[in-house]
Formats: sequence, C-alpha cells, structure tokens
Amino acid sequence: MRVGVIGYGYWGPNIVRNFHSQDGCEVTMVADRNPKCGDRLRKVYPSVQFTTDENEILASPQIDIVAVVTPVWTHYELAKKALENGKHVFVEKPFTYSVTQGEELVALADKRNLKIMVDHTFLFTGAVRKIKELVDKRELGDLYYYDSLRVNLGLFQHDVNVIWDLAPHDLSIMDHVIGAKPEAVVATGEKHLNGVEDVAFITVYFPKRIIAHVNVNWLSPVKVRTTLIGGEKKMLVWNDLEADEKLRIYDKGVSMSTNPSNLHQLLVSYRSGDMWAPQVEQIEALKAETAYFLKCIQENSKPFNDGEAGLRVVRILEAADRSIRTRGEAISL
Amino acid sequence: MRVGVIGYGYWGPNIVRNFHSQDGCEVTMVADRNPKCGDRLRKVYPSVQFTTDENEILASPQIDIVAVVTPVWTHYELAKKALENGKHVFVEKPFTYSVTQGEELVALADKRNLKIMVDHTFLFTGAVRKIKELVDKRELGDLYYYDSLRVNLGLFQHDVNVIWDLAPHDLSIMDHVIGAKPEAVVATGEKHLNGVEDVAFITVYFPKRIIAHVNVNWLSPVKVRTTLIGGEKKMLVWNDLEADEKLRIYDKGVSMSTNPSNLHQLLVSYRSGDMWAPQVEQIEALKAETAYFLKCIQENSKPFNDGEAGLRVVRILEAADRSIRTRGEAISL
Amino acid sequence: MRVGVIGYGYWGPNIVRNFHSQDGCEVTMVADRNPKCGDRLRKVYPSVQFTTDENEILASPQIDIVAVVTPVWTHYELAKKALENGKHVFVEKPFTYSVTQGEELVALADKRNLKIMVDHTFLFTGAVRKIKELVDKRELGDLYYYDSLRVNLGLFQHDVNVIWDLAPHDLSIMDHVIGAKPEAVVATGEKHLNGVEDVAFITVYFPKRIIAHVNVNWLSPVKVRTTLIGGEKKMLVWNDLEADEKLRIYDKGVSMSTNPSNLHQLLVSYRSGDMWAPQVEQIEALKAETAYFLKCIQENSKPFNDGEAGLRVVRILEAADRSIRTRGEAISL
Amino acid sequence: MRVGVIGYGYWGPNIVRNFHSQDGCEVTMVADRNPKCGDRLRKVYPSVQFTTDENEILASPQIDIVAVVTPVWTHYELAKKALENGKHVFVEKPFTYSVTQGEELVALADKRNLKIMVDHTFLFTGAVRKIKELVDKRELGDLYYYDSLRVNLGLFQHDVNVIWDLAPHDLSIMDHVIGAKPEAVVATGEKHLNGVEDVAFITVYFPKRIIAHVNVNWLSPVKVRTTLIGGEKKMLVWNDLEADEKLRIYDKGVSMSTNPSNLHQLLVSYRSGDMWAPQVEQIEALKAETAYFLKCIQENSKPFNDGEAGLRVVRILEAADRSIRTRGEAISL
Repeated sequence: MRVGVIGYGYWGPNIVRNFHSQDGCEVTMVADRNPKCGDRLRKVYPSVQFTTDENEILASPQIDIVAVVTPVWTHYELAKKALENGKHVFVEKPFTYSVTQGEELVALADKRNLKIMVDHTFLFTGAVRKIKELVDKRELGDLYYYDSLRVNLGLFQHDVNVIWDLAPHDLSIMDHVIGAKPEAVVATGEKHLNGVEDVAFITVYFPKRIIAHVNVNWLSPVKVRTTLIGGEKKMLVWNDLEADEKLRIYDKGVSMSTNPSNLHQLLVSYRSGDMWAPQVEQIEALKAETAYFLKCIQENSKPFNDGEAGLRVVRILEAADRSIRTRGEAISL
Repeated sequence: MRVGVIGYGYWGPNIVRNFHSQDGCEVTMVADRNPKCGDRLRKVYPSVQFTTDENEILASPQIDIVAVVTPVWTHYELAKKALENGKHVFVEKPFTYSVTQGEELVALADKRNLKIMVDHTFLFTGAVRKIKELVDKRELGDLYYYDSLRVNLGLFQHDVNVIWDLAPHDLSIMDHVIGAKPEAVVATGEKHLNGVEDVAFITVYFPKRIIAHVNVNWLSPVKVRTTLIGGEKKMLVWNDLEADEKLRIYDKGVSMSTNPSNLHQLLVSYRSGDMWAPQVEQIEALKAETAYFLKCIQENSKPFNDGEAGLRVVRILEAADRSIRTRGEAISL
Repeated sequence: MRVGVIGYGYWGPNIVRNFHSQDGCEVTMVADRNPKCGDRLRKVYPSVQFTTDENEILASPQIDIVAVVTPVWTHYELAKKALENGKHVFVEKPFTYSVTQGEELVALADKRNLKIMVDHTFLFTGAVRKIKELVDKRELGDLYYYDSLRVNLGLFQHDVNVIWDLAPHDLSIMDHVIGAKPEAVVATGEKHLNGVEDVAFITVYFPKRIIAHVNVNWLSPVKVRTTLIGGEKKMLVWNDLEADEKLRIYDKGVSMSTNPSNLHQLLVSYRSGDMWAPQVEQIEALKAETAYFLKCIQENSKPFNDGEAGLRVVRILEAADRSIRTRGEAISL
Repeated sequence: MRVGVIGYGYWGPNIVRNFHSQDGCEVTMVADRNPKCGDRLRKVYPSVQFTTDENEILASPQIDIVAVVTPVWTHYELAKKALENGKHVFVEKPFTYSVTQGEELVALADKRNLKIMVDHTFLFTGAVRKIKELVDKRELGDLYYYDSLRVNLGLFQHDVNVIWDLAPHDLSIMDHVIGAKPEAVVATGEKHLNGVEDVAFITVYFPKRIIAHVNVNWLSPVKVRTTLIGGEKKMLVWNDLEADEKLRIYDKGVSMSTNPSNLHQLLVSYRSGDMWAPQVEQIEALKAETAYFLKCIQENSKPFNDGEAGLRVVRILEAADRSIRTRGEAISL
C-alpha cells in the first residue's frame, strides 16, 4: 500500500510516521503548500518525496491511499478528487464542512467501492476501547448521561469556532459509545474575541432519556479533559490527563421504589461501593487506527469510523451551529 | 433580638446555633411538625422552647425575627404571615416557589418596613467575598464567562428538580459577582428516576457578551464543586472542595490584534504568567450572614441578599423550568 | 459504667462525647486545671460535674473508668493513682513518657486485674481496619515496607518533639498491621526553633526484611497524611486526606527469576494491573474504640490496644530519641 | 566542535540529538557494543558514523568532546582514556563508581586543562533554576530542610542499588541549592529482591542545622517526584509530575518568641499567607546543559556541574553505602 499525505503541519507528521511504520505500507509522497514543510520532512524521511502541489498526489497512479490532513474547509474537494481518482481516503476530523459535502463523499465512495476513514483517533485509545467494552457488556446498565468537559487556553482557530475545533472528539466518542441516533441538539455559547464562539455548551438528546452534554472552551486558564458517564448500575469518570488510572468505575447508583405502605411515597436508595480503575491498554491510538484502515481495505470490510460515522458528527456540528445562532433553539436531527 | 426558627431538619440546627451565638440575640422558640426534632433540640439547647405548631412562632409578640427553614413550597405562606405579624424574615433559598410569590413578599416587606434576608450563604464565604473583591477591583478585567460544575450522588428531592435544589447557589453567586441583569435563559436536562430532572444544564445570557453556565447533576459518582471565571485580564478557578487554596487566580489571557501589514489577518497572543492562591478568610459563612442580618435590622439598612436578590434567582429558576420543558427554548427575562 | 475524664483541652471533649453517647455508660465528672473548661463543658453537658482538682475523680467511688486526656508527662502518675484506686484506665497516646513507667503501669493493671486501653484511635478507622484485614488475608503477600509521611505546619509542642507528637499514630498502626517485634530503630532529625526536633525521620527494622519509615515534620507548608505499604503481591496507598477513596490497592509488583539459559542473569518482570479502591467504613473511630473498651471490661477480655501495645510504641519512641541524639546510631530493641 | 557519544541505550539518543542540534557542533560518531543500536541511529541520523568499538571514538583525532553515556562502572576508564587523548568529557551521573576514581579524573582534567561536565540534567530545568534563584535571593530566608520523595515501580538495576540509581538527582540538586559542605550521612534501607537495596532513606546533615532527606524506592505502586524545602521565611513544594505549576511557594512560617511577662514561656506564632506558583521556564534541560558545556569550553570557564560537583555527589553516595551496611551509622564527610 502506498500512501500520499496532504498537509504536513501539526498533525501530518504523526500520520506520516504511523502509516510509514506499518508493515506492507509506505508513505511515498507528502504535499504541503508551505515549502518549509519539505525541509522538516527530509530531515526525518529523506526517501519520501515532497511537493507543494497536492495534485501530484491526487493524480499519481502510484498512490493507493490519500490522507487528507488539512483544514476542514478543504476536505471535501481533496477527498472528492482522491475518490474520483480511485484512491481510498483517510481524512481528518471533522469529516467535512457541511452535511451535504459529507453525504456526497459517502455516496461517491460507495459507488466506487472505496473506503473512507475519518480520523476519530480517540476511538482507538485504550480508554475509549475500555469504555465501549464496558457499555456493550452492560456493566453500566442503561445509560443516563454522557457529560464531557474539554477546556483549555487556546489554540484559537480563525476559520472555525470552538465547537468545530474541540467537540468532534466528544461527539465521535459519544456516537460510538451510545450507539443510538440523536434526536435533537441545543447549543449555547458566546464570541468574545475574534468573531467565532470561543465558549460553547452543547446538549444532545438521545432516545430512552439518554442526554449528552459537551462543554468546550478556548478561554479556560486550566486544561481539563474529563468525561462523566452515568448509568443505572455503575458510573465512570474518564480523566484523560491522568498518567495512570485514566478510567475510574464507581459501583454507585440510585434506585427508586414506592413505599409498599404508602404508594404515593417514593423511596430512594443509594448504593455506594468500591471504585475500580482498570488497567488501560497503553497503545498509540493512531498506530492502531492506521493498521485498522489498512486491514479494512485489504479485507474489503467497513470501518466503524467510516464516512457515515464522520457524517453523524458533522450533522451534530451543523445543528449546533444553527442552534447557537438562535440562542438554544432545539434542532431536530 | 428574639428569633423564632421554623424547621429543624438538616439545616435548621445551624440557623439556631448561629443566631443563638450572636451577641444581643437569642433563639427563643423552634417549631417543627416532627416531634422528634424537639428531643434533638432539648439535648443541645434545653432552654429553647419547642413546638410542633409554627403558628406559635408566627403569632408570638415576643419574637422579632422569623427564620423559615422549611421546604420551598411553604416559604411564601410562612413568610407572608410573619411579615403580616410585623416580623423580619430570614428565609432559606430558593426564596419562593414562583416569581409572583416573591414579588408579593417583597412588596409586603417594603410596605411594612420590614427586612427580608434570603439565605444565600455562599455569598458570605471567604472565597466568594474574595472573588467579588477581585471582580469589583477589575483584577480580572471585563468578564467573559462564569461556568460552574456542581454535581454529586443525591440528595434526591421529591418536590423539586435538581435545578431548584443545586443551582440557587450558583445563580445567587453569579448575580452577586456579575452584577448585571440577565437577558435570557436556556436550560436542558433529563428525568431518569422520579419524574423530576436529575441532570440539567443552564445557560444564562448577560449583556456585554458575558455568558454563564451551570451544570447540576444528582447522578454523578464523584462530588465536584468547581467554578471557572474567565476575564479579559485574568482567570480564576474556585474549587470549593479544596481544604486550602480554594481559589486560584491565573495571570493568563488571550489578546487579538490585526496584523499591521495585512489587516485581514488576526494575530492571537497568549499570556501565561504566574498562578496565585490568595489566603481566603476562614469564617463560618452563616455566622457572618446572621450577624449581618441583625446589623441591617438595627441600622435599618438594606441587605444585599434581600428579597429582591432572592427574587432575581427565582426568576432564573422559573425561566429554566420553562426552557427545560421545551428542550432549550430561550426564555427572555 | 461511670467515666471520669481528666483533661478537657483539645481532645477531651471528643472523649466525653463518645463515652457519654454509649449505651450503659455516662460521664459523671470532668476535671481540668483550667476553670474556663468548666464553662465550655456546662454549655454542652449541664448535668456533668466539673472540677479543677483531678483527685476528685481519682478518689471518687462512683467512678469505674478514668480517661486520662492530659500531656504525656502526666500520664504515669494519673494512671497509676487510678489503677491503685481500682479504676480501669483509658489513656491518650503516647502511653507514657518512658518504658519504665509503661512497664510499671502494665504490671500494676495485671496485678489488680484492671484494663488499660491506650487511645490509638487510628486503629479503629475504617481505613486501618481494611488495611489490617488485607494484610491478614495475605492479599499483599509478604510485606516489604511501610512508609508514612505525616507532615504539616505546627502544632508545636513545648514538652515533646515532633516524634512524640506525630509518630505514635504511625508506630501504633505499623505495630498493629505488621504484627512483629521490631529489631532496631534509627532516627535522624533537627531542631530549628524551640530546642526540640521539629523535623525527624525514623527507620524501624523488622524481621524478614520488612522495613518501616516515618517522616514527621512540623514545618511543612502543606499537610500530608500518606502511607505506602508494599508487598510481594500487591501494594497500597492510604491517603487519609481524601474524602472518599482513602485506600487504593494496586495489583502491581515485581518478580525476579534467573534466566534459565544463563544462571548469572536475573530477569525482572513487572506486573501492572488494575487499581481498586474499596469502600471504607465511615464510622467515628473514637466511637468504636470507646464501645470496644466497655465491651472488653464487661467481658474481661484483653483489648488489642492495651498497655502492652502502648508500651511497644513507647519503646520505639524512646529508642528514636536515643538514636536521634547520636545522629542515627541504630538502637536495638 | 565534534562530539563522539559512547552508549546509545535509553539516554544516549537524547545526548546525540541535543549536541547535534547546537550551532557549531555536530555528533560525528556514536559507539555502542550492541550492533542493533546502529540501526536505530541510522534511521534518524544517516550521516553519523556508528561503531561497536568505543576506542574508535576515544582515539579519533577528529573528536573534541566525548560523551560517556554508559553504566556507572565504566565511566572511570572511558573518561580517563578520553582525557588522556585530550578530549573534553561529558559524563552521565553518577560521575564515578568511587571517590578515588572521581578524584583522579578531576586531577587529570585539571592537569590537561580539559573540561569535565557531569550530566546533572535537573539543574538545568526551569524548576530548579527558579528554586536556586529564590534561595539565592533569600526569599525563603535561612533554610531549615530539604526533603525529597522519589519513588516508582522499577526500573531495577542489577549493578547498583536504588540509591545510586535515583538519589543522584536529589543529591546534585541539594548540593546546588544549599551550597554548603555536608557534615555527615546516615542511610537506612532494605534489599528484597535481587541483592541490592530497593528501598532506601538517606539523611544528610549540613551546617547551620540544615537537614536533607531523600526517600528512594523501586517498589512503589505510584510514581512520586516531590520535594519540600522549608525556610525561615517561606516554604516551597516542587512537584515535578505536575504539567503546570510544578513549583508552589507558600508564604507560611513559624516564629518563636519568649513571653515578655514570663521568660520561661515560649510563644509560637504561625504565619499563613498566600500561595504563589511562578511561571517556570519550559525548556528542554538537556538542550540548555549541552549549550552551556560548549560555551564553557569556548570561554575556558568552569561549569558549575563540573567534576568537582560530580565528586561531591559520589562522596555522599559512597558514604550512604557504608552507612546502610551498618544500619545507619553516621558517616562523616
């Protein structure tokens, strides 16, 4: 498998390194409009070609996979050309800038029998894999809520607001873990500095009373990456900034019953048991993800983080943007 | 000053102890419908009278101040009778069950020249006093946001949802610190167990792009009491569960400028300086608050946490209830 | 059972409250040389007699148990008189000011068939009970070390150094948990302010290569109460300042083997599994301890924290004092 | 300046990268007995020569500086040959395996007018630079104690005990910060697994009642890197595992005075003010250290972390080894 990587800024080098290190795979060409990226590339990979014209990658018959590691507003056009030229596409999150663009790419890939993988890297971390496993085994019981806090100082983007920058992580994890179609989105937030929202709060309503909430903020003095997931039987806290013990599972819960001698009276009982921090696999998520993409292509199987998955996230992002402009109007999905 | 206290459940003993320990003040009678409360009272204060009929307090010519420490749906009626009988009223938060009730009590107290104090205890803690001082001195510069996380397991209330139970703390602090009239409220949330919301998220829009957010949850496996306040010049984190260093002030910020050679390009600069944890006064907040109430009565001055302040909180609570029923419709205030 | 309590300073009120609340037990008299203590006592317990002359307690035929809650240098004389007058003795830690004093009291109690309990309160906390249970069930395997850090700012004592003030907690827990006779003590430390050591480090050698270490310090800017216990199979961290999850048990360990193909080469293997925080009983330790003392008296059984246990701690304290004066000479026990 | 690096195991690649990236400096050759290191090297630095025979470096007339990044028992011989061949030496900590070896190297370098730098990397971190600055400016006042906790699970060494593995960090920092000649060393510890101490406690006595203590442990379930430094005026906590706010300075202290009306009575007063976390420079310490070495050579100036500094650490290590064998006998320095 020969990979061409478009975009060699902050994240591109990780994509190059991970595809390059997979057996039976090599990165043959990297494109970036900034010629200085070529110098950085040559230092580490003297054998990989560099170009400032991404069309060399898109048109090259030598390339099987195109990785699109560029700003979101360029994804659609680059991915479309790659698919039209018969290449599988690995694309950064968020998938596209609009639902329409995403739908078109998904349809195009289907038609050409090509794979799209959206780089929802977090789904491949040990922590999220463990959470998914616990939820699927019904260790938490029925889910009640998913509540994520993802705040820090900067990094300001000029072309997208804080929702498009930070929330895709949470929205993709939530989609993966909850595994249900959301009903509606409510978003609130405010712009303080450069004309895009830098503080935002998103609520996503799911069926069966599951509610999700994402708090994203570019103006926080401290960095926080904490998610609470509450279920009927157990609850968990995932603190991604902990070196060890990122995941803590609490044998805690509440149950309600009616008083047998007075049916109007509710009895509340709390259960407060042990806490347990399972050992979480320490892998480089991107390594597992790129290996998985190669495997899906070879076996012609559908990645769970395919274009459809990317599109589900973009649907929420688009709805959140509409909601935030109206100060919280619920947007049905 | 002679005080009568109605309600001797969880919080009542603290009210009794604090009024009783003030110079020139004594608690002469305590009422609770539960006769067992009388046993508990007598053990600690053998000289204080106990009754199961609160009207004894409301009607007693010996009593100057009535403290109402009962569930919120009883506040209006008890406070009204107390005011009609010429007594000053100290009432638990939230002030009343509706805006209409609150407005009536405020008007009645005005007419009779009596004082109402709503027990927004947190306003008298060392931490909130220090935050208020920092904001008033403009140490933080223009405020950007106020974001509070107040979650824990239980204590479930049957008569009110989690917003009425937990959010009054944050709403009263936010009102005190921001000092501006809110424009609109958006609330989302979900009911999982007993027919009232146990998870809720409230956004309050203020003028000048200040946005406030309160996350309250009765179903969290961990207890969190953390508030972030972001301003133009500085930002702070208040963690009320820290034994020391509850307040951390960060000399961090972001500023935007336009590139002089390219007016379309925004330049972002981050400032990341020292952190500073000021010594916070270690006082019992309720002691300071009860002393302040006695002083306001003696000097015939207006408490800052008067009926009007209580009413401002109830207005947001009522709007939040309306918003949550419509999944986030913005309610103008 | 009628209890007389000598000493009503910082800790005395807790002793009074706990004995007083036990069924079939009452505190009938309290003595303190400071008459102001009488005012404090009367406010809470108007029915308990107060005296400034402790001999009234020691001589009273109405009293079955004398609780000695005074500075350590007074313990011997007060306890001796109490025993001579046929009373059971509950005495604060450290038991006595010297080994000789302790031995004499133990012999006297034996002769008179009276009970001594030394107030090693920590042994009755949920955390220590759980640790003891885990060690006794061999969950940790063979013990390797016990390492405690107990530091804070103040409270300076004038009559004893930091070892006699803070280390008895750790020494009594270590004695209880390890359950072996120590071989030798090495102590180092320094005096900075008032002529007694305010910083000290104690190493206690036990058989079977178990080593214990206690770091006590009155000059620390932060309060720390953390103990590490390492064993062959598991290891634990006890952080007594955590509100919940005081105890964390790690399924971590190291094992050594020789390389089968090269017997000179050691192979190290690390095991790094889950962490587990058991629910720890939330009881007031002193309540359990006083109940246990009453039970031991009634059933004529030997408390595990008897005079012998107190004496084992005093032996280490005395040895530590000798060692520290010689800058670390090992004192055999 | 041309650098030859001997040893390309765990730390060697960092040494190569940092010397290589300095202006006017290049790594020309790397030696390691393990030929696989050559493969790793070539991937990153295809132009740097690799050899399995370190004598090629030691003898090469093309090389000005030899970096010795090998186990401690090889330092003496390699450094000696390098100096004899007229090369400056950069050597890993601990400097040598014995005081005698270290003295010989220092004398040899002096005679040949060559520089030795011992890689006490921590001295170049932002945190230690800030601590040194605070102590030198007398912000903490007279020092009382230096107390470091450096524990984790593994990494077991076979040739040295935990003191030689972990304590050199603390001993070099303590030497740098306190800036006084230690008087005596007391060490205790125990061997549990492979015949060398895996748990150890070292006390170092300095003049003027300054006491230092280092707790090192290979068998801890948690990783801790915390140092407390107490002074007359202020105290600090350095937690090296914190991402931000590694350093916290407390305006806390204790002072003693005699009661003017009773000269036998000591009055203790505590001062408890603000806490302050200064912004600490975020530099790669090894980059600053290698640049400093090149500068010292060019300007013919004496590095503060020269052979003498390395030797001061080895003196304490050697004394600690003697003390631990006698269970804590104080070894005068």
